[in-house]
Amino acid sequence: MNVPAPTPYRAPVDEVMLALEVAGLSELLELDVFAHVDRDAIRSVLDEFARLAEGEIASGDRVGDVAHSTFDPASGEVSAPAEFARAYERYVEGGWGALQIPSALGGGGFPTLIATVLQEFFASANLALSLNIVLTLGAIEALLQWGSDEQRALYLTKLATGEWSGTMNLTEAQAGSDLGEIRTLATAREDGTWSLSGTKIFITWGEHTLSSNIVHLVLARTPDAPPGTKGLSLFLVPKFLVAANGELAERNAVRALSIEHKLGIHGSPTCVMEFDHATGFLVGPLHGGMKAMFTMMNNARLAIGLEGPAVAERAYQHAYEYATTRTQGRATSSSTATNSPIIEHPDVQRMLLTMSTSTQAARLLIYRAVAHKDLAHQLGDGPLREHHQEMVDLLTPVAKAWSTDRGLEAASTAIQVFGGMGFIEETGIAQRLRDARITTIYEGTNGIQSIDLAFRKIPRQGGAHARELFDEIRQSLAKHDEPALRHATSLVLGALDVLETTTTWMIEAVTNAPDDALAGATLYQRLFGDVVGGWLMIARAARAALLARPEAARALDEATFFAIEFCGPATALGAVITSGAKRLAPLRP
Amino acid sequence: MNVPAPTPYRAPVDEVMLALEVAGLSELLELDVFAHVDRDAIRSVLDEFARLAEGEIASGDRVGDVAHSTFDPASGEVSAPAEFARAYERYVEGGWGALQIPSALGGGGFPTLIATVLQEFFASANLALSLNIVLTLGAIEALLQWGSDEQRALYLTKLATGEWSGTMNLTEAQAGSDLGEIRTLATAREDGTWSLSGTKIFITWGEHTLSSNIVHLVLARTPDAPPGTKGLSLFLVPKFLVAANGELAERNAVRALSIEHKLGIHGSPTCVMEFDHATGFLVGPLHGGMKAMFTMMNNARLAIGLEGPAVAERAYQHAYEYATTRTQGRATSSSTATNSPIIEHPDVQRMLLTMSTSTQAARLLIYRAVAHKDLAHQLGDGPLREHHQEMVDLLTPVAKAWSTDRGLEAASTAIQVFGGMGFIEETGIAQRLRDARITTIYEGTNGIQSIDLAFRKIPRQGGAHARELFDEIRQSLAKHDEPALRHATSLVLGALDVLETTTTWMIEAVTNAPDDALAGATLYQRLFGDVVGGWLMIARAARAALLARPEAARALDEATFFAIEFCGPATALGAVITSGAKRLAPLRP
Repeated sequence: MNVPAPTPYRAPVDEVMLALEVAGLSELLELDVFAHVDRDAIRSVLDEFARLAEGEIASGDRVGDVAHSTFDPASGEVSAPAEFARAYERYVEGGWGALQIPSALGGGGFPTLIATVLQEFFASANLALSLNIVLTLGAIEALLQWGSDEQRALYLTKLATGEWSGTMNLTEAQAGSDLGEIRTLATAREDGTWSLSGTKIFITWGEHTLSSNIVHLVLARTPDAPPGTKGLSLFLVPKFLVAANGELAERNAVRALSIEHKLGIHGSPTCVMEFDHATGFLVGPLHGGMKAMFTMMNNARLAIGLEGPAVAERAYQHAYEYATTRTQGRATSSSTATNSPIIEHPDVQRMLLTMSTSTQAARLLIYRAVAHKDLAHQLGDGPLREHHQEMVDLLTPVAKAWSTDRGLEAASTAIQVFGGMGFIEETGIAQRLRDARITTIYEGTNGIQSIDLAFRKIPRQGGAHARELFDEIRQSLAKHDEPALRHATSLVLGALDVLETTTTWMIEAVTNAPDDALAGATLYQRLFGDVVGGWLMIARAARAALLARPEAARALDEATFFAIEFCGPATALGAVITSGAKRLAPLRP
Repeated sequence: MNVPAPTPYRAPVDEVMLALEVAGLSELLELDVFAHVDRDAIRSVLDEFARLAEGEIASGDRVGDVAHSTFDPASGEVSAPAEFARAYERYVEGGWGALQIPSALGGGGFPTLIATVLQEFFASANLALSLNIVLTLGAIEALLQWGSDEQRALYLTKLATGEWSGTMNLTEAQAGSDLGEIRTLATAREDGTWSLSGTKIFITWGEHTLSSNIVHLVLARTPDAPPGTKGLSLFLVPKFLVAANGELAERNAVRALSIEHKLGIHGSPTCVMEFDHATGFLVGPLHGGMKAMFTMMNNARLAIGLEGPAVAERAYQHAYEYATTRTQGRATSSSTATNSPIIEHPDVQRMLLTMSTSTQAARLLIYRAVAHKDLAHQLGDGPLREHHQEMVDLLTPVAKAWSTDRGLEAASTAIQVFGGMGFIEETGIAQRLRDARITTIYEGTNGIQSIDLAFRKIPRQGGAHARELFDEIRQSLAKHDEPALRHATSLVLGALDVLETTTTWMIEAVTNAPDDALAGATLYQRLFGDVVGGWLMIARAARAALLARPEAARALDEATFFAIEFCGPATALGAVITSGAKRLAPLRP
């Protein structure tokens, strides 16, 4: 059968430029540290990276899905498709990995927010390969914050360029969501190094030859350490040991035992890693592993959240293209007697708009969180810095969970737009669903994110930071009383009312009825994301109007669609969230 | 990595016996035609078939997913896994296909409702293979209603036993949802047969050797026929021509050109079929093809709707089992200091109950529709028969769309319960999502079903039949004012209020603002299903209490959970549905 070829990826640079404004680009560009960065520079960076993403990075996407990365048990080597190696090489050559590394350390000194856009384009173009970069960025972040001077000197530059790559080694068979169960053991040697032994699973890009060295960051337990997460420390275990002059020395005793056969992201090898008296170096304080790992993890959570809109954007482009070319039936609005492209059918329009507006909202949510992070990072100590840090902490679990839940829905809806053709692998649209399916799971399942939001983030200082955000939303919406936005604004405000009431209930329940809070956490997180998303979509429309951008009229209508489709129904979630654990009676012990 | 083996399938016979009561088994068993059928006979039929489903039918499920059915271009032959052939043989030997064939025709004379249960077990055990049976049952239905005496004599018995199988040949590359575009041509020959030429795509089990002959039912256009669907006629095209004595004669000019590489149901070959002057026989009147095809299609729509709960049941059993064995973290309700099985965590309970209650509701919805069908079929002409036929017509699109939408969600949620392990193909849970993904598409996409509901079914006689159903729901709920059901009942009634208002709006919109109706149809269908599902879950709880069944207490709680989780939020859909096509502005021409 003739199957339409997958639509090439087109990086949405215009849309992203608008999203950056909504996220808070102006505030960032006012900082001295970014004096050398302006909108023109950003635009040209994005345009240039867009070409790489659309070209060589995207070229391996389907190949990786079909051919997978492969494992050779004899040598223990993992081979990625040749297209991956070429794209990776171009990424290293371009110095893209160092864009947000401080200028003082030889990087581009750009805001992380701009690097986040590169990451989005990368993930849209080739999700499997992009994970390699995500993990390297996480390792960089961990070493910047926790590494010794010597460790930074030895590893940072090579990680920043991508000549070397990084991994996160957390999970063990018995320790998934519950890291307290980790058993990998690190024993001190006399020379100050550590000997690590144990087996880690689900290690993304744990072994490969795209980079000349791999820097594993490994959570392990030391002898006589306290039980649970308090006894964990973070170790750096390079694939090849590094001499003092930076040259690669002997192969370390860490190797891949196998790779997994997965539903999606086939190009990304998911390894079982064996550490057999491997040489490691303590990163940060002894028994401070969780704190150091959270530096990587919070970073990674935003990066994984970003995969929601990244996959959804790609799926949307593909579904939109298909809908404009596939003709079936005559639309009621059609003026001709012939069949119409299915995009003229209202139900198809509804599906496409659900996809596109939730993608936009998720992008805004993540960019917003990253902008707060940049500000928290760059501002001097004080209440403003603290405010931004609290906003990052508050928004991170929502950005991860809500965005990937919506991204997964969008990927599935894209198949629905394709109809029967969507089930045929050669069209390439099924890959979006298979790839997206992991995003709601890894880096902390969305259930875990929701519990993090309800139990750790919301109750801080009696809910003060959540209230700050809600007040900001109210004030911002009060400014947007243009008639064209009034309907959307009233729907978002309605959902916000419910969110505020529910937040009070949740803070109370966390202390007095934790099972009730746990039973409501996931839907609370969804409500939270719907409200923030609705607000940001309105802010986007207002900003587009202010800037007299060509998409201003469309942005107004998109904000309204999002509010009708997501924020209106969200008001009904309050009753479900507060119904408590007693509704779970059929499965309660 | 060690991966837990997939949980064996266990046919839910107890649950099904309760569901049959809710669907209307008593009314059926009062009919003379079913005088030889009683509950004991039904139970023993189900128990016996359960053993076959759990054993040989299920044994090919994973094999089929991994090995696929394969195509040999040289011979044009399609090979299914050996496990499929053995299971199919046992099905034929057992005479299971004839259970609901009238006794007068040599069948078991059971209600279709009971055959539907077999079909559910079959689909849970091995969805790919079960499709073969679904299509044969459709062909039987078409011949019973439209075949000539000679055609029935030649084909029916062999189809009923499964010695021969059937297919539906509708789709062509340019004719998917829009059958009016069909181009396959049927030209009359002097001997009264027809010569068919054309290419059909997406033909499920179009070629295989499980049965000794394949009876293709083919929609084709005759020369000089009117354009569009009015010019279509239905033809029977056997793979092997059949002599007057019933013996197989020469090979007909119909063959598979290729099979598709699909996201799921890998064991089911999806064929491109070429008819090259193949010999066909007209079934039903010339140009009466659509009507005859709808006989098969409505049948198939209920059968495909059933795949929703069938796949979801299997996914639920597997996820439930995993959740009881996988330990992570300590549940707040736990009395021990060690980690708890994840089923003790409220968010996991919520996921599992969402799956199990939507599965139960979908099963009840489909069984109810099939019971109406049985009654419509068996009752003499008159208002009662008409009532039941109207109910089948009304419920069929909801049963197809709502049940498969919920089944798809459940299959995806099952992966979420598994966490990272859900992404590993060897656990088998990812197959559920891949298989389920087609159910919302084939046999009329769920968008098409929703339009059928809104434009054809609801407006009949000014909405009289919808009102009949709503009145029945109200009267039924009024009977269930036990305190334990009061909360659930009030939630369902709240959603029913919205459904009634929305129905009035929809009937008006269909005539006066069809694009508004089209823009709301899918969510209207969801609201409709949530209400009917909520009602049937309450009826189930009440029936379980009345029969003093061991699961009575649980059924009460399940009805409440379903009402909270589905019917409460459904009330908010009214505003979205009635917001009309103007919200689609960003994509409107």
